[in-house]
Amino acid sequence: MIMSSLLSAALEAAHAAGKLQKEHFGSDLAVNEMLKHDIKLDLDVRSQELITEILLKHFPDHHILGEEGDAGTVGSDTQWIVDPIDGTVNYFYGIPHFCVSIAARHQGELVVGVIYDPIQDETWAVEKGGIPTLNGKPIRTSSRAHVSDAVVTVGFSKSRKALEASFDRFKRIAVDVRKTRMLGSAALALAYIACGRLDAYIEEQISDWDIAAGKLLLEAAGGDFNVTPSEVHPGKLFVYATNGKVDLSSYL
Amino acid sequence: MIMSSLLSAALEAAHAAGKLQKEHFGSDLAVNEMLKHDIKLDLDVRSQELITEILLKHFPDHHILGEEGDAGTVGSDTQWIVDPIDGTVNYFYGIPHFCVSIAARHQGELVVGVIYDPIQDETWAVEKGGIPTLNGKPIRTSSRAHVSDAVVTVGFSKSRKALEASFDRFKRIAVDVRKTRMLGSAALALAYIACGRLDAYIEEQISDWDIAAGKLLLEAAGGDFNVTPSEVHPGKLFVYATNGKVDLSSYL
Repeated sequence: MIMSSLLSAALEAAHAAGKLQKEHFGSDLAVNEMLKHDIKLDLDVRSQELITEILLKHFPDHHILGEEGDAGTVGSDTQWIVDPIDGTVNYFYGIPHFCVSIAARHQGELVVGVIYDPIQDETWAVEKGGIPTLNGKPIRTSSRAHVSDAVVTVGFSKSRKALEASFDRFKRIAVDVRKTRMLGSAALALAYIACGRLDAYIEEQISDWDIAAGKLLLEAAGGDFNVTPSEVHPGKLFVYATNGKVDLSSYL
Repeated sequence: MIMSSLLSAALEAAHAAGKLQKEHFGSDLAVNEMLKHDIKLDLDVRSQELITEILLKHFPDHHILGEEGDAGTVGSDTQWIVDPIDGTVNYFYGIPHFCVSIAARHQGELVVGVIYDPIQDETWAVEKGGIPTLNGKPIRTSSRAHVSDAVVTVGFSKSRKALEASFDRFKRIAVDVRKTRMLGSAALALAYIACGRLDAYIEEQISDWDIAAGKLLLEAAGGDFNVTPSEVHPGKLFVYATNGKVDLSSYL
């Protein structure tokens, strides 16, 4: 019962924020760069506010932790982990690949995950112990087990230090796999693995809100999700996620 | 007059092939890998046949050069350069980023270019000397002139040799630009630069049909397009394309 009300609130919030983002997407490409920067900040903040408002309307005593700040009751049993726009650079450059990511943690354990791509109108949803879905249909990871068949998405982080650390690994992987991709959204990378579009994902410098929903989704769909503290970036995470079949661990 | 009939035939063909591709997209994710491979070959071929049929219906004496073979009259003044599915791996893995690319060359000169993304329903179109459009609206490249603001898409090719050649360049670029992307479609990379979503594109191992439509589109939109024979891949092309403002030539 409590699970279902969490999920429906997460869906309501993700869809509302996605709708706002879609309405503004690409429409301002003609404005100058400076103004675009302001629009960006504004839309990130407005998306997070909208999500916060909807979640707290349903659960006034929960705690909301988002990329753009937090709200609600610190110390609540239930925490919401929100990335209002995952793939921000894509969004503001007009590349149609970004999403809203919302997860709930109850007493330290992930219980709900929702990822919404407003451009494709694709909603990934999962509850702890339940069947993960894409637009209401059950999903599972791909069956590809051979490195040479795998399409692997990687993320290069902003800092020179993290970039350097990633390159050697990336090069060794790229020569062996079918294809590499850099699509620009961590949450969608995990969602794509969960539904069999990608086979693995590696990134050096990630935050909790980028991956919380995706972790629950991916594991429920048969995937493997590994996160360790980043060696080059204190406070950030190193992520290695797969479809549960392909093994890239020797490349890490 | 002749230009407009070329463009309208290109649009008809691109939309017909795109419709076919969209109808089959993602629907077969549950089938086994072997069957998927056959579906792939079949759809590539069927798309090209559909495009060929429409172009030759309008212009029975033209020559069609496509990734999946050629048709029509060798030696015709007008050649069509067709990539029925650009971004094939994306298409068959279920990643919604691929397109149809169709260009016409008249007496050796590009005169028409059409790129169609059936998932986003986005059509880029241009005629020689005309205004390039996206879904009928005029487009132009971004105004970003600083390397540090640029989002650059790169393509890594299939062969180890081309991969090795690309890596050092890629690394030097990645540390300086805003973001790098690998999206998996050469034609869409050029279309995205033409409408200001990306700022530059570099790839080592490209064929004429991947870039013919994109070249005409990009140059008409204010971009710079440079192609040279690939040093590591005889018969293939090295492409360096920009928005016409940002300069990555010192990295090449």
